[in-house]
Amino acid sequence: MKINDNYSRIKSSYLFTEIAKRVSEFSLKHPGKEIIRLGIGDVTRPLVPAVIDAMQKATLEMGSAATFRGYGEEQGYEFLRAAIAAYYGKKNVDLGLDEIFVSDGAKSDIGNILDLFDNDNIVLITDPVYPVYVDTNIMSGRKIRYLRADESNDFLPLPDGKKADIIYLCSPNNPTGAAYTAEQLKVWVDYATDCGAVILFDAAYESFVSGSLPTSIYQIEGAKKCAIEFCSLSKTAGFTGTRCGYTVVPKELVFEGAGLNSMWLRRQTTKFNGVAYVVQRGAEAVFSAAGQEQVRKDIEYYKENASIISEALKRGGIKHWGGVNSPYIWLKCPGKMTSWEYFDFLLEGPNIVGTPGSGFGENGEGYFRLTAFNTKEKTQQAMERLLSCAKAT
Amino acid sequence: MKINDNYSRIKSSYLFTEIAKRVSEFSLKHPGKEIIRLGIGDVTRPLVPAVIDAMQKATLEMGSAATFRGYGEEQGYEFLRAAIAAYYGKKNVDLGLDEIFVSDGAKSDIGNILDLFDNDNIVLITDPVYPVYVDTNIMSGRKIRYLRADESNDFLPLPDGKKADIIYLCSPNNPTGAAYTAEQLKVWVDYATDCGAVILFDAAYESFVSGSLPTSIYQIEGAKKCAIEFCSLSKTAGFTGTRCGYTVVPKELVFEGAGLNSMWLRRQTTKFNGVAYVVQRGAEAVFSAAGQEQVRKDIEYYKENASIISEALKRGGIKHWGGVNSPYIWLKCPGKMTSWEYFDFLLEGPNIVGTPGSGFGENGEGYFRLTAFNTKEKTQQAMERLLSCAKAT
Repeated sequence: MKINDNYSRIKSSYLFTEIAKRVSEFSLKHPGKEIIRLGIGDVTRPLVPAVIDAMQKATLEMGSAATFRGYGEEQGYEFLRAAIAAYYGKKNVDLGLDEIFVSDGAKSDIGNILDLFDNDNIVLITDPVYPVYVDTNIMSGRKIRYLRADESNDFLPLPDGKKADIIYLCSPNNPTGAAYTAEQLKVWVDYATDCGAVILFDAAYESFVSGSLPTSIYQIEGAKKCAIEFCSLSKTAGFTGTRCGYTVVPKELVFEGAGLNSMWLRRQTTKFNGVAYVVQRGAEAVFSAAGQEQVRKDIEYYKENASIISEALKRGGIKHWGGVNSPYIWLKCPGKMTSWEYFDFLLEGPNIVGTPGSGFGENGEGYFRLTAFNTKEKTQQAMERLLSCAKAT
Repeated sequence: MKINDNYSRIKSSYLFTEIAKRVSEFSLKHPGKEIIRLGIGDVTRPLVPAVIDAMQKATLEMGSAATFRGYGEEQGYEFLRAAIAAYYGKKNVDLGLDEIFVSDGAKSDIGNILDLFDNDNIVLITDPVYPVYVDTNIMSGRKIRYLRADESNDFLPLPDGKKADIIYLCSPNNPTGAAYTAEQLKVWVDYATDCGAVILFDAAYESFVSGSLPTSIYQIEGAKKCAIEFCSLSKTAGFTGTRCGYTVVPKELVFEGAGLNSMWLRRQTTKFNGVAYVVQRGAEAVFSAAGQEQVRKDIEYYKENASIISEALKRGGIKHWGGVNSPYIWLKCPGKMTSWEYFDFLLEGPNIVGTPGSGFGENGEGYFRLTAFNTKEKTQQAMERLLSCAKAT
């Protein structure tokens, strides 16, 4: 039996595993130090009451024969897809219920969507980037081309004119927090249309957008013919440990005469068995009026943390981006430190854990990511420590 | 962008979608007829009290900041993997916690495990078979060889002496209900070892085994070096709509110098984000003393249904297999009917829905599957109708 030897080409250790290792070693050496984590993008606010109520109710249903639910449609219950379609309606995007696929989170679908594409495709990925886009394609043996995101383009690169077949865009971006305007996304949609490429649009952070920037690729004309959109309730509603998202595959998405919507339905009905009923009821509650009011408060809470971080970095004279439309702040490592040098500096001095930018790609070297997901108190404390240590340097 | 054109080679309609279509058309034409479903392998008994209690408790935890859980390890919480390891311990199988991977169900993992293998491998699948094994490999473009299961070998085929790289075994079997002895599984393990093949062992129905037949491939010597085992709480504990299972990848499983355990960990940490905390607490409760007592009652309930079906078929002179170690009964269509002719006969006459054997492969033609998952009352009623209609023929 021959293994998939592409696996030997992946970097030996996933970024967050390496971080956890260093933090663990530090904790063992310094058990008294209180570490403040502004690293992994995990939420801290609990599930909102509307969601808890819905999940409690659904759990009771599952305990009674009369209301018990077995297998649901792999695509997700209609009650949830209808709630999602209504959410899109508020953004002036009109979707059919059969264009929406409930997922157990964007990470699964962003990886598994690659089943639909031949390995002989050129993948275009902006750098720095969420490592999953790169690793999943290395696992398939695809050729990857990187597009430079840096200070000169405000970490918002535009097409380079060369051919691409599969294009990853994440906006608002992980890790930089940068968010494209509608005009910039139109340039991407036109380019993909010209190349005959598919855009894989990661909208996991759409609910953090301030102002009038796009919150869905489908707000851009022509996108239904070239883009798949991946959304997640992880950051929007604290579902990192509850697992639910949704993927939109428009009926108009056709390549080489094949409709991606029916291909994805086939993939999911064959290799997936849907999301837990209890979780889908919780997700439905996110989109209710009460749910939206409650999750909005949490999103604003995190955005306020982002402001706290941003203000502190400003006071400390540390150049940074993001934090306005995103829970991520992307900063330039002070004193010409490398990303991992700054990681160690922050861990050992102010005892803060962040994420080294180099973990997100070559263009991340010399940069660093902080997240706004901790508590307000810990975020303020972390920033006070960071500024004290900066003064002492 | 080039699509994966293997998708055009899959049969145009998934078996259960076709069944649903015919049942729906019949219902519309005959709204008064009460259809009894002995077709899709979906459970009807609700989640047991121990599971409901655990899920309620976990849901409350998720609503409070002090007890809220975000991302869990993709491999699954240790509390659940420890419970699973203890369950295996009772079967005299010793597993490390890092050899157990919590899944959202066997269907996902049986499909996704193929990521680890090169496309250039010969796949050996018994026929008739659960369609997913075939379809997932067609999607990858792999060569499939079928091994005939029929009356002559009691639907328990043994190796044919020709090379194979990836071998699917499902025991107790879906759809035939046949279950291998330890001696027969040893023949398979030895054969796989000689071929350098990997066995993908589907143990989804292990909890239905009566007597002393094997309930895990690892009860067979040598299996840790050649087999991956896929288990599910769907039929064991009614989790078809709650989604949880576990996949065992032994550390000793090494091919071409690569350890499948670390490859699967890498695949899952890159393309999956774990199972919901609430669901994992529910799964943990399945393995508690109270949970085991409660789910055992439900399994016995279904096995009694299987006896009811078996007795009726015996009285009706219909040759059949399974139903002893399995919730499935596999019968020979009477009167030389084809599978779909018998499907229509049962739907129109006694208004019973079953599954045509031909949907499971060529060797399923002329056979039919009935499931024991309905209520006792409906199962008895269905059998009375079946026998009346049989007499009338």
